[in-house]
Amino acid sequence: MRMPHAARRSRVVDTSASPHARLRPLPLADVRLSDGFWEPRRRINRRETLPSQYEHLEETGRLDNFRRASGKIAVPFRGLYFNDSDVYKWLEAASWSLATDPDPDLERMVDAAITEIADAQRPDGYLNTYFTFERAHERWTDFDLHEMYCAGHLIQAAVAHFRATGARRLLDVAVRFADHICHLFGPEEEGKRPAVDGHEEIEMALVELFRATGDRRYLYQARYFVDARGHGLLGEPYGRFDPSYSQDHEPLRDQREVVGHAVRALYLYCGATDVYAEIGEPDLLDALRRLWRNMTTKRMYVSGGLGSRYEGEAFGGDYELPNERAYAETCAAIAGVMWNWRLLLVSGEARYADLMEHTLYNAVLPGISLDGRRYFYQNPLADDGTHRRRPWFGCACCPPNVARLLASLPGYIYCTSDDAVWVHLYAEGTAAVDLGDHAVRLAQRTDYPWDGNVEISVEEGGGEFGLMLRVPSWCEEGCTPVVNGEAMDASFPPGSYAKVRRLWRAGDTVRLDLPMPVRRLESHPHVVENAGRVALARGPLLYCVERADNPGLDPRDLVLPAYSNPLVRFDPQLLGGVTVLDARAEVLVPEEAWKDRLYRTARPQPDGGQEAGSTTLRAVPLYAWANREPGAMRVWLRSR
Amino acid sequence: MRMPHAARRSRVVDTSASPHARLRPLPLADVRLSDGFWEPRRRINRRETLPSQYEHLEETGRLDNFRRASGKIAVPFRGLYFNDSDVYKWLEAASWSLATDPDPDLERMVDAAITEIADAQRPDGYLNTYFTFERAHERWTDFDLHEMYCAGHLIQAAVAHFRATGARRLLDVAVRFADHICHLFGPEEEGKRPAVDGHEEIEMALVELFRATGDRRYLYQARYFVDARGHGLLGEPYGRFDPSYSQDHEPLRDQREVVGHAVRALYLYCGATDVYAEIGEPDLLDALRRLWRNMTTKRMYVSGGLGSRYEGEAFGGDYELPNERAYAETCAAIAGVMWNWRLLLVSGEARYADLMEHTLYNAVLPGISLDGRRYFYQNPLADDGTHRRRPWFGCACCPPNVARLLASLPGYIYCTSDDAVWVHLYAEGTAAVDLGDHAVRLAQRTDYPWDGNVEISVEEGGGEFGLMLRVPSWCEEGCTPVVNGEAMDASFPPGSYAKVRRLWRAGDTVRLDLPMPVRRLESHPHVVENAGRVALARGPLLYCVERADNPGLDPRDLVLPAYSNPLVRFDPQLLGGVTVLDARAEVLVPEEAWKDRLYRTARPQPDGGQEAGSTTLRAVPLYAWANREPGAMRVWLRSR
Repeated sequence: MRMPHAARRSRVVDTSASPHARLRPLPLADVRLSDGFWEPRRRINRRETLPSQYEHLEETGRLDNFRRASGKIAVPFRGLYFNDSDVYKWLEAASWSLATDPDPDLERMVDAAITEIADAQRPDGYLNTYFTFERAHERWTDFDLHEMYCAGHLIQAAVAHFRATGARRLLDVAVRFADHICHLFGPEEEGKRPAVDGHEEIEMALVELFRATGDRRYLYQARYFVDARGHGLLGEPYGRFDPSYSQDHEPLRDQREVVGHAVRALYLYCGATDVYAEIGEPDLLDALRRLWRNMTTKRMYVSGGLGSRYEGEAFGGDYELPNERAYAETCAAIAGVMWNWRLLLVSGEARYADLMEHTLYNAVLPGISLDGRRYFYQNPLADDGTHRRRPWFGCACCPPNVARLLASLPGYIYCTSDDAVWVHLYAEGTAAVDLGDHAVRLAQRTDYPWDGNVEISVEEGGGEFGLMLRVPSWCEEGCTPVVNGEAMDASFPPGSYAKVRRLWRAGDTVRLDLPMPVRRLESHPHVVENAGRVALARGPLLYCVERADNPGLDPRDLVLPAYSNPLVRFDPQLLGGVTVLDARAEVLVPEEAWKDRLYRTARPQPDGGQEAGSTTLRAVPLYAWANREPGAMRVWLRSR
Repeated sequence: MRMPHAARRSRVVDTSASPHARLRPLPLADVRLSDGFWEPRRRINRRETLPSQYEHLEETGRLDNFRRASGKIAVPFRGLYFNDSDVYKWLEAASWSLATDPDPDLERMVDAAITEIADAQRPDGYLNTYFTFERAHERWTDFDLHEMYCAGHLIQAAVAHFRATGARRLLDVAVRFADHICHLFGPEEEGKRPAVDGHEEIEMALVELFRATGDRRYLYQARYFVDARGHGLLGEPYGRFDPSYSQDHEPLRDQREVVGHAVRALYLYCGATDVYAEIGEPDLLDALRRLWRNMTTKRMYVSGGLGSRYEGEAFGGDYELPNERAYAETCAAIAGVMWNWRLLLVSGEARYADLMEHTLYNAVLPGISLDGRRYFYQNPLADDGTHRRRPWFGCACCPPNVARLLASLPGYIYCTSDDAVWVHLYAEGTAAVDLGDHAVRLAQRTDYPWDGNVEISVEEGGGEFGLMLRVPSWCEEGCTPVVNGEAMDASFPPGSYAKVRRLWRAGDTVRLDLPMPVRRLESHPHVVENAGRVALARGPLLYCVERADNPGLDPRDLVLPAYSNPLVRFDPQLLGGVTVLDARAEVLVPEEAWKDRLYRTARPQPDGGQEAGSTTLRAVPLYAWANREPGAMRVWLRSR
């Protein structure tokens, strides 16, 4: 039942000693998935995604850049100035994967990459292959060139590798670079150079480095970077964007709106939440909660996707949520999961787990193809059939980011608090839980996300503790757990944790029945594109209508009448097995008179088009779109 | 009745000898405006806009850059690499202004600027203040750095100055630079270097230079630049954008969709239309007509604004027309006017004059404040009150572009063809028309755009010719002209020219009655943001609802019912005198339950919000918005 020591350390965000965190994640390796949804994806992640990404790192010169920096080969630097971070993110992904699924081939790739990295480090600890040789003198001159961003990803990779394997080789490299940075940058009164990086990332990395090493300097450095922002240190990055692009327009603790580059913003919020978990300053948490509220009530796609604008890869204004031109970068969705995870650890509040789950299924997963080898950078909620996943990008931040999330996913499912076990996500498998006084092995049986029946049983061990089972917010009826066949007295509302506290013995079982009716969602009336439209959802999944299932139909012309009651059917052959929704719909095509016209004097009733009969539309989960022949797709359907 | 020779040449686009143009513009100086709409704006243009822009050119170092280049002062280059073009565009504006309204102060500024420019020219004819001294060796290395774009604006300014004043000083400078360019760039088989500029502009400038000088080399060079595009000469500009950004993705003659940077695209179409007017290749005109059709039926705002995307300042996809995030650059609207003007000259088809008029009132004019001293770069069709005009920009292309259009406006009103006089735009004033065999002075009397009664009379001279009077497409009833008090037999449909051919004598009068009911416009059903919405228009003017007229109301919550019949009233005190529309409307605010929610399970009918009584909304012409206290604005109103 116990795992070897090293892998036991492999918590994704290790709050096990954080004074201001309510929850502690279970180590990755203590969770085993055997479900039909996530585990097949994780297998593809190991077998297809990680090896193919390593090939891309080689083919595109990202590894050669390290060999060049260490003087092993004499070639020009290739690619973008922050390409080192792709190698680091891949290493983090591979490390988490090794924590749960040892794999000698993968281990060899990891070790080879670490060797190249370690060899490229400068004697003073500095490490960035772009700023070598002819550009060495440009180090730390332009803080929008991602030097600390890359350092942060190096640190995260090193912490993951250390936690997963117990080996210190990469951690030592990271520590040397972190020491170099801590030595250089900080408050003027300490004789250091005040600075922040244009692209946040190092903040959360340094907190985890503190957790991995116990050296509080890294924590204070993280807090310094969080609070130094908003004081004009960055100036005007690149002229085109104002300081809010990098969240440098005012101190974080004063900020009230999520603005600027979405991934930068969210990584900052992650780092600040990590700092809060250790230091516990209430105004920091207040600011973060305020920003979360602004984001979730004004500036978030129904998928959980974040970032409305191509220009600046940025959050938009309130209710600015274009569907076809959604940016909704895959990395931003992942950053959203990371931030919600941290807020959940700090607070134990179900809303953060809710949004984490929702974002995982509907905003992260669309970012990768079913075969695990192609990726979206942007994730629109409507498309004419031209937006397709690609095997790699010049700016390849998203692919390894998806890989590290999938690799570390088991770590997001369970937590412990002082005398309770928390179940945030539902997926068949087991969990070895150490509650200090006692240890138990839990088994989870479910067909989630296709079915809302979940059974949690104690397989081994026991003791008195609470079992906190999330009642998702989408489960609008709430839920009454059934313990050993007997319904509890209490019904727990949606968006809460059902608390089942008792003296647990091996063989005890709790059953949740989370009904999954098809839901029609509507948007706040000020979201202009969605007026008069609904989106279909079932359980945790958001649906879309894709041309491949609806030949000859333009999803723009489908109208879902109020009476239409979708038929729900699981199709094991389709898209790796999905539940499809079939609904009667009307077809309303633009009148012939609209041909070659864009505007006209209105008819007494604004134009609805011309009835063209009715049909049965088929909707599939959004995550599965664009895996067949190209064709139009739409999440928001006209309704009446 | 005759003007001095020089000013008689001052046609805006001089097709008077173009074999493939149907119409010839009237020289600027032969048209006198005395109307209450345009002439006050032109007065402000002369008294406020042009002098204040000259100050900006001085204060921002744009003129100093020339002084620096000629060695008169030793200061660093200031601003953006294409800042020379702002000086040229201002010079063009000032020159057109001198053609109609001599002004010794303005003339002094013009002469001073020309001196600085002439002194900065290199011995080989090259002239660009950015590529001097330390950057001289970078000339013609990166064709996205606007060297030919700046050359094009120099040429246009020089042609305007020559036509307006008869002086050759600036024209000689332009000729030297043009010769330098013609010498360097062209087909490889002529021993030249194949190249095109990333930002189109020089094409139309060279055709006008040909017209001004009679040197056909410039025409062939223009045709070369039009046709060299689309063959990969530009490569990947700046990495972020693909070749379609600069319309370099395929040869223009093969293009079917308006794509990429809108101003670049439209300047290219202008140049190509100019080339067609001289050379008459039918496939070129076919391509241009195809592009115009794509633009006007799929990718144009109801205002005539062009360019849907901030990213790349670009045209969007079909029906991609976000209102609040409309880019609709003022320069793109001006370029739209310029292109329609050229197509009109070539074809004599009313649709081009229609769109020219519509764009002038509703997409160009919003770009400048009523006081003539502040400008919009982007022209949204909805706003929360934060988008405000600014006195100047780092990239200041728009301000002098508005100035040159207003200065040259009299040149767009009338044309002649072999035996007809064409009236494209309606504005009180006179026109001295030379038809070769005979000459007439026409007087136009009207209160346009507030009233649709137009009277055209022959004040002097006479002869047999056709009078072609545009029946605007907004005039859905069509029009029956009344000649000397007697209605004609014929009724002319909207979007045509009413042709009145007779033997005209002094005192003859034609009256048009163009009724101006308030119209509700609707969009093609595939424009997602405008579904269920209408826009108000009257005559040539598009209206908007602005908070300043509707205190306490959020324009997003106003619903215009089908029964609402707006009251029309001219208010001489408001916004320099405008006709306002007052209409009964319902107020539908988001239900209380929407507070702090973005999505929810839909009610059986998609949410319309909560009735909050009714009100009278006031709409004002769009061009006048944002001239009072900041507040929300909206063109498209909910309707039911």
